[in-house]
Amino acid sequence: MYVVKSPLPEADLKTVSEALQGALVDLVDLSLVAKQIHWNIVGPRFRSIHLQLDEVVATARTHSDTVAERAATLGVSPDGRAGTVAATSGIGKVPDGWVKDTDAVGTLVDALGAVITRMRQRVNSTADPDPVSQDIFIGITADLEKHHWMFQAEHG
Amino acid sequence: MYVVKSPLPEADLKTVSEALQGALVDLVDLSLVAKQIHWNIVGPRFRSIHLQLDEVVATARTHSDTVAERAATLGVSPDGRAGTVAATSGIGKVPDGWVKDTDAVGTLVDALGAVITRMRQRVNSTADPDPVSQDIFIGITADLEKHHWMFQAEHG
Amino acid sequence: MYVVKSPLPEADLKTVSEALQGALVDLVDLSLVAKQIHWNIVGPRFRSIHLQLDEVVATARTHSDTVAERAATLGVSPDGRAGTVAATSGIGKVPDGWVKDTDAVGTLVDALGAVITRMRQRVNSTADPDPVSQDIFIGITADLEKHHWMFQAEHG
Amino acid sequence: MYVVKSPLPEADLKTVSEALQGALVDLVDLSLVAKQIHWNIVGPRFRSIHLQLDEVVATARTHSDTVAERAATLGVSPDGRAGTVAATSGIGKVPDGWVKDTDAVGTLVDALGAVITRMRQRVNSTADPDPVSQDIFIGITADLEKHHWMFQAEHG
Amino acid sequence: MYVVKSPLPEADLKTVSEALQGALVDLVDLSLVAKQIHWNIVGPRFRSIHLQLDEVVATARTHSDTVAERAATLGVSPDGRAGTVAATSGIGKVPDGWVKDTDAVGTLVDALGAVITRMRQRVNSTADPDPVSQDIFIGITADLEKHHWMFQAEHG
Amino acid sequence: MYVVKSPLPEADLKTVSEALQGALVDLVDLSLVAKQIHWNIVGPRFRSIHLQLDEVVATARTHSDTVAERAATLGVSPDGRAGTVAATSGIGKVPDGWVKDTDAVGTLVDALGAVITRMRQRVNSTADPDPVSQDIFIGITADLEKHHWMFQAEHG
Amino acid sequence: MYVVKSPLPEADLKTVSEALQGALVDLVDLSLVAKQIHWNIVGPRFRSIHLQLDEVVATARTHSDTVAERAATLGVSPDGRAGTVAATSGIGKVPDGWVKDTDAVGTLVDALGAVITRMRQRVNSTADPDPVSQDIFIGITADLEKHHWMFQAEHG
Amino acid sequence: MYVVKSPLPEADLKTVSEALQGALVDLVDLSLVAKQIHWNIVGPRFRSIHLQLDEVVATARTHSDTVAERAATLGVSPDGRAGTVAATSGIGKVPDGWVKDTDAVGTLVDALGAVITRMRQRVNSTADPDPVSQDIFIGITADLEKHHWMFQAEHG
Amino acid sequence: MYVVKSPLPEADLKTVSEALQGALVDLVDLSLVAKQIHWNIVGPRFRSIHLQLDEVVATARTHSDTVAERAATLGVSPDGRAGTVAATSGIGKVPDGWVKDTDAVGTLVDALGAVITRMRQRVNSTADPDPVSQDIFIGITADLEKHHWMFQAEHG
Amino acid sequence: MYVVKSPLPEADLKTVSEALQGALVDLVDLSLVAKQIHWNIVGPRFRSIHLQLDEVVATARTHSDTVAERAATLGVSPDGRAGTVAATSGIGKVPDGWVKDTDAVGTLVDALGAVITRMRQRVNSTADPDPVSQDIFIGITADLEKHHWMFQAEHG
Amino acid sequence: MYVVKSPLPEADLKTVSEALQGALVDLVDLSLVAKQIHWNIVGPRFRSIHLQLDEVVATARTHSDTVAERAATLGVSPDGRAGTVAATSGIGKVPDGWVKDTDAVGTLVDALGAVITRMRQRVNSTADPDPVSQDIFIGITADLEKHHWMFQAEHG
Amino acid sequence: MYVVKSPLPEADLKTVSEALQGALVDLVDLSLVAKQIHWNIVGPRFRSIHLQLDEVVATARTHSDTVAERAATLGVSPDGRAGTVAATSGIGKVPDGWVKDTDAVGTLVDALGAVITRMRQRVNSTADPDPVSQDIFIGITADLEKHHWMFQAEHG
Repeated sequence: MYVVKSPLPEADLKTVSEALQGALVDLVDLSLVAKQIHWNIVGPRFRSIHLQLDEVVATARTHSDTVAERAATLGVSPDGRAGTVAATSGIGKVPDGWVKDTDAVGTLVDALGAVITRMRQRVNSTADPDPVSQDIFIGITADLEKHHWMFQAEHG
Repeated sequence: MYVVKSPLPEADLKTVSEALQGALVDLVDLSLVAKQIHWNIVGPRFRSIHLQLDEVVATARTHSDTVAERAATLGVSPDGRAGTVAATSGIGKVPDGWVKDTDAVGTLVDALGAVITRMRQRVNSTADPDPVSQDIFIGITADLEKHHWMFQAEHG
Repeated sequence: MYVVKSPLPEADLKTVSEALQGALVDLVDLSLVAKQIHWNIVGPRFRSIHLQLDEVVATARTHSDTVAERAATLGVSPDGRAGTVAATSGIGKVPDGWVKDTDAVGTLVDALGAVITRMRQRVNSTADPDPVSQDIFIGITADLEKHHWMFQAEHG
Repeated sequence: MYVVKSPLPEADLKTVSEALQGALVDLVDLSLVAKQIHWNIVGPRFRSIHLQLDEVVATARTHSDTVAERAATLGVSPDGRAGTVAATSGIGKVPDGWVKDTDAVGTLVDALGAVITRMRQRVNSTADPDPVSQDIFIGITADLEKHHWMFQAEHG
Repeated sequence: MYVVKSPLPEADLKTVSEALQGALVDLVDLSLVAKQIHWNIVGPRFRSIHLQLDEVVATARTHSDTVAERAATLGVSPDGRAGTVAATSGIGKVPDGWVKDTDAVGTLVDALGAVITRMRQRVNSTADPDPVSQDIFIGITADLEKHHWMFQAEHG
Repeated sequence: MYVVKSPLPEADLKTVSEALQGALVDLVDLSLVAKQIHWNIVGPRFRSIHLQLDEVVATARTHSDTVAERAATLGVSPDGRAGTVAATSGIGKVPDGWVKDTDAVGTLVDALGAVITRMRQRVNSTADPDPVSQDIFIGITADLEKHHWMFQAEHG
Repeated sequence: MYVVKSPLPEADLKTVSEALQGALVDLVDLSLVAKQIHWNIVGPRFRSIHLQLDEVVATARTHSDTVAERAATLGVSPDGRAGTVAATSGIGKVPDGWVKDTDAVGTLVDALGAVITRMRQRVNSTADPDPVSQDIFIGITADLEKHHWMFQAEHG
Repeated sequence: MYVVKSPLPEADLKTVSEALQGALVDLVDLSLVAKQIHWNIVGPRFRSIHLQLDEVVATARTHSDTVAERAATLGVSPDGRAGTVAATSGIGKVPDGWVKDTDAVGTLVDALGAVITRMRQRVNSTADPDPVSQDIFIGITADLEKHHWMFQAEHG
Repeated sequence: MYVVKSPLPEADLKTVSEALQGALVDLVDLSLVAKQIHWNIVGPRFRSIHLQLDEVVATARTHSDTVAERAATLGVSPDGRAGTVAATSGIGKVPDGWVKDTDAVGTLVDALGAVITRMRQRVNSTADPDPVSQDIFIGITADLEKHHWMFQAEHG
Repeated sequence: MYVVKSPLPEADLKTVSEALQGALVDLVDLSLVAKQIHWNIVGPRFRSIHLQLDEVVATARTHSDTVAERAATLGVSPDGRAGTVAATSGIGKVPDGWVKDTDAVGTLVDALGAVITRMRQRVNSTADPDPVSQDIFIGITADLEKHHWMFQAEHG
Repeated sequence: MYVVKSPLPEADLKTVSEALQGALVDLVDLSLVAKQIHWNIVGPRFRSIHLQLDEVVATARTHSDTVAERAATLGVSPDGRAGTVAATSGIGKVPDGWVKDTDAVGTLVDALGAVITRMRQRVNSTADPDPVSQDIFIGITADLEKHHWMFQAEHG
Repeated sequence: MYVVKSPLPEADLKTVSEALQGALVDLVDLSLVAKQIHWNIVGPRFRSIHLQLDEVVATARTHSDTVAERAATLGVSPDGRAGTVAATSGIGKVPDGWVKDTDAVGTLVDALGAVITRMRQRVNSTADPDPVSQDIFIGITADLEKHHWMFQAEHG
């Protein structure tokens, strides 16, 4: 049976692996939510936000890969299957159907806000047990907060 | 309220939009399944299959975008949210945890086989109502069957 | 005198060559109309639509070249001169002078709609006489309908 | 209503805007004429001239965009529609149908010659009212005269 | 023993695999014939046709790979060995030794003509049994007919 | 002590060097003003104008470097320090704090207008003493007026 | 009125925003100072240092943008206007006129030294209130200290 | 009739041209054999060897072109037609049908070995009559021996 | 004599410089060890691991340069000479001669494991004295642990 | 016999063609002189000036091609043969043998100065007869004067 | 005074340095001759040969740089000044004025033939004294003979 | 046990393999020595030589890989481990600590001189037993002697 001797002691590993699994689910869901609105947005600002959403997708996809491979690196099997994402994501369910451009921006402000709050908790919880994972969470938070600013700046 | 005057009559549109929505869900799930095994594979062939799976992910992501935007083009709202994917995908559930390289190949043979069977039905059902959508399904089938060949050729 | 032995029998060739010549004129005119509005658009959405219109121009130019060379390939001389375009295009005349951004979007929705209707007829009429030309028309229709969706989505 | 406060006084603006509108029409027509022969040329030198003509098309398209946007910059609406081009171009009508390679070269020598003569007049007329527009006409003339040389060098 | 469960029923598979094997041999031979003349051509048009022939080689090589891998995808072993190509190609034998440029063009007109005739038959025969393979044959035919036009246009 | 024997007589050099120093300060300030608004803009058109402003920054930075090195080339030390820019720029002071998107466009219309007026004077004053420097000012004016058009077209 | 709900509590935000505003001013001024010397340097080592200074400019421009957008992300309006830079920069005033190459290196050693000292204080002060901003300051310090080493190594 | 005054005396030319013609046939056949196995390989190492074989194809294609053009350069008509290759290649006939990955490696070890032995003889025989051709054979041998090493290293 | 005024107090500098010198030696040796096995590996997995090892080499070379230049930046002379590496590396001596692919993977698992253990100690020891150097060690550890995962995943 | 109907009257043509022929010779010689010193320079500043000289070569080669083709465009045969360059260049003869780096800079200052003086005369003499050629001379002068500044700045 | 301790004994150095200086002059002159005809060619094959000549120029420029730097490497000052080239080139003087395309090809056949004869002598004379220089001459000969073939193949 | 049937007879193989192993060690050490000075150099010419040394590193790394893989190709295990390099390199030991720029150049002149002397012996000794390996040594010598020239030219 496959066993990796993790560089972290058991207790630390538990904290860090929960943070990584939570981040993985949040980021996969963020990529699916941003694509959903990328396809369903309507209104005068369609083109600008349609393009902006694909930049969120790119950010979410890149970081979800980093986070999942970091879990594997620590000897913990990551889980990014659709059922797991649907059941445990930190992003509230987004409605189906067409989305007005104004609502699209609001949805992203909320979704990014929810993920950022959890990501900042992961920055704190992993500082001592694994500064390497913490550094990954810091980088993700910086990118997500920058997207958050942009959607806020064009909202309301 | 947003209404697109679809280029297709109502009955044709129903057939085509079901085909597109089905394909969207299958392709999003294929991308998630391939990533799941990309992260969890172990065994001597790890590196080769790890890389091969990212080519499946790239294929699935590109085509899912094309299919969803084709639905929007016909005036039908596409649904690629995690919950919808988890509930309606044509791919059987893959187990969590580490996956032996040999099993990884078998899982892909099965997953691709399932998606291809449904995609060929879509090629048939859309031939008359919308040759434009059919052409997209033909291109997707060609790519998926090529991946299928490669995993079969290295299986068993 | 230059004579190409066409791979198609006479009757089929007539059908296909009319379709190709019609498509050529429509696509050249679409490129000119999109450039006209690209230059004359005014209003708060100026920049976004200005850029979007150049993507329509690129699509129209690429496909008009393909269609004209397909006609030559079948031994039929294509005609894309300004006078021919002005006299036989399927796009209604667009007004001169500055165009409000909202009107610009409406003009493109109409122009693309007119070209798409004729292009779908060409997809049908060429299916039997020349599936190679039909495949070209299918590809063009897919691209034009995608542009059509985007302008519709940001219209009204 | 949209009004740009032009950096030029009224009389100067009239001179410059006529020069720009004239250049726009000539350049759009040059791009259409070069494409027409690009598609219809036959004879032993087919391939070489076929390629050379696309370089003329690229030159004409790039400069027509610059000229039209320069007109808009000065507050004058440019007109590059097919009907306007057909009615006011400085290039004589080119015949339809296949074109022998030798005739193709001759047609380009004539067409470029006609446009260059008018473009040199624009260089002169705009020197005082707007050296910025003049500089654009100088650059266009340099490129067109270089093409003219090449077609002359291979003619006769 | 290696067995692929083909997506096609037995009878269909026979039709399609014969078409694919025939296309493979024709395309490999076309690449060898075009290279042979690429090396042996002499005369004033040497450089232009020498370059043009390498574009035929590129087309033939790319499509022969696609066709052979499509056969493998359907579970049929492709055969592109020199002996098989020499024995079963649809292109008549080309003479050895230096080739005058005019004759070189004529040889290509003939070789392309022979391959195109057979490729159009494959488009027809595979339409029902496998639209995915048919779509590949349509794309190949479009490219070969375009090359055919160019050599015809510069011939005679 | 460093002395360059300038290619211009003393009186001409004075005229040209004042023009270059003035242009340097205006262009450095334009890059700072455009960045300031790039960071502080809010409102529904945030993303489009945020991107557009970075194109102004790129234009201003490139031309300021050209102008400063042209001064050095003529043997005149350029001065682009913050204090000099703050004291002598031709652009009126822009307010601090967040800027509504509509106001942002207005601010750019004004700033570009102010710089263009002075740049056109430099085109005139340098025509005789140094046509090389004049050519640089003509190129700068063309670029700035194009930006000016775009902001005007989307303003009001 | 535009209000961002900052992810930081009020007291922390004050500390972090002061650090970001200070860094912004220092970095903008560093880019202006390095350009000033890039243009005014004379002496045998002119070319090498002229090129090296543009690398400092690139570093300073990239980081100033990151820092200003980080401030906006936290809901604090950044101020990078010429007057603010002239009044509050941490770099001592550099003299106008030509600069000997040896002095140029000395000036950069001093300017970089001054900015680094303040940047290290920002690394310390932001560690607890915002590790995301701290990580940005750490990256900036690494780059500036590397430039500092190179100018020191070639000084004296 | 086309005659090149070869830079080599008659006897030397005979030696060199036989070496070049032999190398041409071997290299064309090597490219066909490597493609044949690229398409027909099965087994767990499918993907790795499938990719590796395309590197052999690229090497063989590039060098066959160089060798054939070197023959033409010396005034000797090269012959790379399918029949000539089938009749005179130095590589033993490879079987048709699927090939196990282990056998695929063995086949390449043998094929490369056969070609290398003949190529080393060409290095020797051309040293005196034409060091330019010898240098080409040396370069080819270096590349083929490197491929040979790699297949040997993974064999058995 | 060359003296850099280090930004760190003496005691801190000692800690940090020992960490940097140790990391330099480990990384240079890792690059040499990975190359050694890259050249000497034999067995069925030759190609995959041969390529994978060059990715380790690239990682080790890039980071060794960063670490050495960081030491110089702090005013400490780095030592990466062969004798120093041979005498002080943290990697156990690897045997000479051919290496079976399975053993090659095991050797890398051990070598990476040894370097990672020491690198994590450097992350801890430099946290207080120099967070800039610590950030570099964190980034190196992340990369090495990812390589470590991959070799572990394909081992045993 | 080949005759181009020049766009310029006879007297103007004489002035312009002399200017172009003179510039051609100066620029070809400048490229040879700069290469000569590029190869023969010795001294501590070898590398920096060696690289700088190739930038002069690139400038001279590009502009000599433009100038020669401009002459051909006006119907005047350009002459850039070695004998013509040796007999009529405006650059004084440079000595053979090794060149000290300091002398190398001085040689370039002189050579560039001589060419610039003549080029400025060409700017003046062609202003009326042909503003298109004048614009080319202005661009060349700008580039040469920039090189001149750089060599002056590092001289003495 | 600058003295390099050459790796070659005195007698060998004399042989090799004469070969290098001769090659340098031939190659510089070849680049000037090919440019001369590139500008002056007229006739139906203008475009094809105009482009082909720039490939000769590129070959000649690249190799002349290699040869000159090889001389410097051996401690021998290379001489590529216009006067030296005019006086000692192995290429016969080419006439001034326009050149018919047929004559252009003949001129190149002669010029390349003359240079090749001398270059083959250099291959022989340097074999023993310096195989490194010989290898350079072999590479140059290969390239020149390939150009020679192409011009011969299209000649007569 | 792994055995390669070498293409060389036993006695020849011994000569060639000793030459390859010696070259491998020299080149690895050269890359380490050049990096050592790249990091430790101080003085006014720091930047120029710092950059130049990385070009030596690139040359040494590329060639060491080629040489080691050539040994493996001949069936001889290469040894590039730190201990072997430290014990058997042909480069004298370089001192630790900072290096003045003038001394840095001198060190490279010596190190390159030592390696070149040995490399020329390898060119001679391998000429008969293996012209393929000899050709590799000739190419390496050409590159090293070019670096040697440059450091000599800027030395003293």
